[in-house]
Amino acid sequence: MSSFGQVIHINLFGESHGESIGLVINNLPAGLTLDKKRIEHALFKRRPKSNLSTARQEKDPYKIVSGYFNDKTTGTPLTILIPNEDTRSRDYTPEILRPSHADFTAKVKYNDSNDYRGGGHFSGRLTTPIVILGAICESILEEKGIIVSSHIASIKDISDTSFADIDITEDILKKLNLSDFPVVNSTVKAKYEAQILDAKHNLDSVGGTIETMIHGIPAGYGYPFFDSVESILAHLLFSVPAVKGVEFGKGFAITKLFGSEANDSFILENGQIKTSSNNSGGIQGGISNGMPITFKVAIKPTASIAKPQKTVNIETMEETTLELKGRHDPAIVHRVIHVINAITNYAVLELILRTEGTKWIG
Amino acid sequence: MSSFGQVIHINLFGESHGESIGLVINNLPAGLTLDKKRIEHALFKRRPKSNLSTARQEKDPYKIVSGYFNDKTTGTPLTILIPNEDTRSRDYTPEILRPSHADFTAKVKYNDSNDYRGGGHFSGRLTTPIVILGAICESILEEKGIIVSSHIASIKDISDTSFADIDITEDILKKLNLSDFPVVNSTVKAKYEAQILDAKHNLDSVGGTIETMIHGIPAGYGYPFFDSVESILAHLLFSVPAVKGVEFGKGFAITKLFGSEANDSFILENGQIKTSSNNSGGIQGGISNGMPITFKVAIKPTASIAKPQKTVNIETMEETTLELKGRHDPAIVHRVIHVINAITNYAVLELILRTEGTKWIG
Amino acid sequence: MSSFGQVIHINLFGESHGESIGLVINNLPAGLTLDKKRIEHALFKRRPKSNLSTARQEKDPYKIVSGYFNDKTTGTPLTILIPNEDTRSRDYTPEILRPSHADFTAKVKYNDSNDYRGGGHFSGRLTTPIVILGAICESILEEKGIIVSSHIASIKDISDTSFADIDITEDILKKLNLSDFPVVNSTVKAKYEAQILDAKHNLDSVGGTIETMIHGIPAGYGYPFFDSVESILAHLLFSVPAVKGVEFGKGFAITKLFGSEANDSFILENGQIKTSSNNSGGIQGGISNGMPITFKVAIKPTASIAKPQKTVNIETMEETTLELKGRHDPAIVHRVIHVINAITNYAVLELILRTEGTKWIG
Amino acid sequence: MSSFGQVIHINLFGESHGESIGLVINNLPAGLTLDKKRIEHALFKRRPKSNLSTARQEKDPYKIVSGYFNDKTTGTPLTILIPNEDTRSRDYTPEILRPSHADFTAKVKYNDSNDYRGGGHFSGRLTTPIVILGAICESILEEKGIIVSSHIASIKDISDTSFADIDITEDILKKLNLSDFPVVNSTVKAKYEAQILDAKHNLDSVGGTIETMIHGIPAGYGYPFFDSVESILAHLLFSVPAVKGVEFGKGFAITKLFGSEANDSFILENGQIKTSSNNSGGIQGGISNGMPITFKVAIKPTASIAKPQKTVNIETMEETTLELKGRHDPAIVHRVIHVINAITNYAVLELILRTEGTKWIG
Repeated sequence: MSSFGQVIHINLFGESHGESIGLVINNLPAGLTLDKKRIEHALFKRRPKSNLSTARQEKDPYKIVSGYFNDKTTGTPLTILIPNEDTRSRDYTPEILRPSHADFTAKVKYNDSNDYRGGGHFSGRLTTPIVILGAICESILEEKGIIVSSHIASIKDISDTSFADIDITEDILKKLNLSDFPVVNSTVKAKYEAQILDAKHNLDSVGGTIETMIHGIPAGYGYPFFDSVESILAHLLFSVPAVKGVEFGKGFAITKLFGSEANDSFILENGQIKTSSNNSGGIQGGISNGMPITFKVAIKPTASIAKPQKTVNIETMEETTLELKGRHDPAIVHRVIHVINAITNYAVLELILRTEGTKWIG
Repeated sequence: MSSFGQVIHINLFGESHGESIGLVINNLPAGLTLDKKRIEHALFKRRPKSNLSTARQEKDPYKIVSGYFNDKTTGTPLTILIPNEDTRSRDYTPEILRPSHADFTAKVKYNDSNDYRGGGHFSGRLTTPIVILGAICESILEEKGIIVSSHIASIKDISDTSFADIDITEDILKKLNLSDFPVVNSTVKAKYEAQILDAKHNLDSVGGTIETMIHGIPAGYGYPFFDSVESILAHLLFSVPAVKGVEFGKGFAITKLFGSEANDSFILENGQIKTSSNNSGGIQGGISNGMPITFKVAIKPTASIAKPQKTVNIETMEETTLELKGRHDPAIVHRVIHVINAITNYAVLELILRTEGTKWIG
Repeated sequence: MSSFGQVIHINLFGESHGESIGLVINNLPAGLTLDKKRIEHALFKRRPKSNLSTARQEKDPYKIVSGYFNDKTTGTPLTILIPNEDTRSRDYTPEILRPSHADFTAKVKYNDSNDYRGGGHFSGRLTTPIVILGAICESILEEKGIIVSSHIASIKDISDTSFADIDITEDILKKLNLSDFPVVNSTVKAKYEAQILDAKHNLDSVGGTIETMIHGIPAGYGYPFFDSVESILAHLLFSVPAVKGVEFGKGFAITKLFGSEANDSFILENGQIKTSSNNSGGIQGGISNGMPITFKVAIKPTASIAKPQKTVNIETMEETTLELKGRHDPAIVHRVIHVINAITNYAVLELILRTEGTKWIG
Repeated sequence: MSSFGQVIHINLFGESHGESIGLVINNLPAGLTLDKKRIEHALFKRRPKSNLSTARQEKDPYKIVSGYFNDKTTGTPLTILIPNEDTRSRDYTPEILRPSHADFTAKVKYNDSNDYRGGGHFSGRLTTPIVILGAICESILEEKGIIVSSHIASIKDISDTSFADIDITEDILKKLNLSDFPVVNSTVKAKYEAQILDAKHNLDSVGGTIETMIHGIPAGYGYPFFDSVESILAHLLFSVPAVKGVEFGKGFAITKLFGSEANDSFILENGQIKTSSNNSGGIQGGISNGMPITFKVAIKPTASIAKPQKTVNIETMEETTLELKGRHDPAIVHRVIHVINAITNYAVLELILRTEGTKWIG
């Protein structure tokens, strides 16, 4: 379903070329003033721009159509609506299945009734309201000293410095959040761009990985088993189109270590219990341990490429060759990163609030 | 929380050294006869045995205390109860935090009131009823031609042949399901065992990866966004203790490919639409595409090792050294694999049933 | 929260004088053509009209902004949006609490940040999209031979003939559904209207009861305990503003009978098991028994009356007298009845689909 | 389903003559010491006793098999298990459908696989663990100054003094909670008993109504629409077997009043905003207003009566006469009242905790 959340329940709707897309956010507390500049900046960061992206100018003139009054949340459902402006009729050939798109699965699932235009409900455009949600949650978490921050950890074979390899300060994280192309090692940016432009030149595309840190989250959030921190985060991360892998802490690489290398020894630091390493990524038994929560996400290369591709015409049931017209993003990692950040902010808030409810009893 | 599921709702309970552990399974249809042999075999496979595991003899004499009458499910909640036999009092020192265990996080989360004995609710023992659940779901899926099967893809640096590299037949998958130490390439088993015993000899432990295939699942299951196939599977997989990463299809490796290499071309095979490669792991836009669903899971090295480890005594707030007594599993990958298989069977059934409900409308 | 439903999940949003109100309907099957005439008729029936209602002309020019393409549902969230036209600024005095309105509770709950204009999210206007939802569900149920139909069972002291006292045919039920002021005994309408106009004349208001029948629902739907037919129906019925009581079958009157009078004897009718009476209202053990499901709902008199009323000014914390300006509905039973019908149609569909999911296993 | 709750999630299981019945309570905070005496007293009150009930001696030797350690809740699922002792084989004739029991509906719903012995999962015995849950929640609410209390408002035609007609003090409510046969006007007890014994003498049964008050609940709990206080309470109340009606405040009788009579005027009392009457039952717009929440519940006459009844043999499909053997409760109102109280305590706690979660943001 297109809804999620027990405390802050969200409901996503819309298709790429329908009337509008939007998001209903339920149960936000009353009295919050939205930080419009933060929202604008978040939208700006996700927006396609420069020669690394498609030419389609997506402006996102969002409206808040409910739940906001006198510059404050009312406590009742907040609804974000983003009208689709670029919905002109075109020559669509939905019968020519685009490889590694949802064309085929949507057609089967929805018995040929799916809105295929621009990917419909499956379009990356649907992540725009999630970016707004993320900005709202970010404001709330920031007040509590919690920062979510990500960088482009790799594009194809080129890698940035990992969070694990340097001393991460709040300043570094905040700086990354200011950038629309966040990297730790500033010299890697040019290499990434060259890699992307090279793919573009070849009518091809590239993917990459995103590394995220949740800084300042106290120990004790999450649950054993089905609502573990990993479970909730992975559930939401895998809902972002193009994500094919999620790993926490050392992730898959931890399987190459001995237990004595992998274990995070407890130490005392200024009278606080910490761990000397953070291979667990800040989580043990599904619960935050007070260290930064870290994870990595794999983003597949953009499926839309201009190169001719073999595929099937599902109407005639014949094999054919597809040549996608128009301009295509040679990479989306630098855009998806802002969605990953957004949905992580939401996930953290939801995780915390699930636990906080019962503290009333205390 | 320790509950999950909208259609087949489950509720896990118990602590390693409490009275009993168990699972309530809600909404199973009435009239199913449980395959007791299959359940026994599943329990056998997960059970520690031989020199690769601890000496603790876990028998699992489970009882069904509700929802089963005249050898058939009644349709009301089916409750599995497994009494804990080995609950004798011991010298526990919960104040000495075991590295990379949930000792610290449980203590913080539950304000010192957690049942620390044997890991309490966090114990791997809690996965026993999940294995029974898995066997029940497996029977149901088998009737529909759906097979879930896994193999130990790697232990530390040694790897088995990947599902991606050979022709997978139903026979291979069924054979893997018969084995308590499933590998595709039979010669790798001895190497795995040597690796594990070597770790054991050094009072250390190793981890590994598990590769799973869901064979026979038709196209059209799952949802875009928050209930994508990946989201539901990852949610449940990450609830299994020791899992640190989940990747679908080509996973993280897909980020090293160009789009033209990563995309799965549609082809016709005996009049059916298939894809020539399966880098997407059988999922597009969060929905099954009719190809086998494949994923890999990272299992960290067993956290309990006999080697002395640095840690903190949380009572005295002093750093100290921990030497775990008793015998410890030098690896659990070959046991966790059966839990991964079990929870995947459950996840697939839940995914299918969520979609099937609305078909009544027709 | 303003959301409900596991299979057909809905999310209501909006305030009476905000930008728009609306409803997201998740998980409707793809390929349904909406019956626009039926929707228009349902909206017409709920709309205030004639001298029995306020002068405010509520047109409801709804838009479907997502989930509908080429005159068919797409299977992704269907979003209904109703812009608020009459949102001109007025002299609101939210500090003067209107008795038996949500002014006070909303103010407390939402820390003074609620949108008080026209009742905000609490406004009866929010039931408009529910009426559209009801019309959509009605089409689906009609195809399956299930009809939901209601009549105004009483207004103040005057009563209509009860469903229990006559032979109910499909024809009678369908005829009731055509009427915007549905009564079984046509002569009672004039008396009801006189009663309402009399209240109006006295600057006062009246309430009444609504009796509903769900005809054609097969035996076997619903669950014991927490998802009983009564639980799900009552949950939704009590979400309709102004509802103060819900009773099934004979309801409160059953407490005046002996068991031997109250019990519904099983009989055979054309080889089918029926009951000779229907005091249980078609439900036993929380599950439909194949007889019509019947219930009654109590609607309180409209809280807004022109008569002066004692109340409190919450700003000055002084007692005061409130004289509501404008024209006020002297009764809303004849409008709420269409909301009750609508939400019952939705409840029935949700109840059925919850059960149908597991039939796949069969 | 047999589960409920978002914050304190519960899962009921078991059949009357199966191995055990029980309840899993998820998400109770850690560190609570259960008040065993209160639980014992609650069980005592619900237990059949004296000549008003059947001879079957139900002892309820419950066990807590998980979630409790060192006399404190651990924060992980608390599981209550009650073994069924009286499970001897008897001559059951499930094919003779007992009128107004769930025999028929269970048989249809569960395709003949239901456990029919003693009503199976539909048995009133299943309410025993709910009584324990209620006692646990009662302790928590009492600490916060919230008291839930009920009295037998009527049995057949005889009525007790209503809460609405006298000044209710905490003392009165506490005294009612001490009684296993709670009435406001002590002289009515003898009349109730005579009424019940008279029915018993005639091999018949009687029903009645229960009136409940939630005292001390602050304003601001509950939600507009789908999670209104009425919706959550009614959902749970209607899950109790034998409940056929629920009304809040003045309930159905409010439909006989003019708006000017029905409205609750706001007044100031010691600087606090109160209402002069409480026809709304402490709820406006679905949200508590700080006045006591009051409601009434209709309990049908016990369906099991010794008098011969007409029914159908579903095997032979012939009409027949049923003469129930053994002794039968001529009334259960005085037992169900303790279940109503219990489930209300749970409902109130759940309602409060849903709201409290978001206060963290504040």
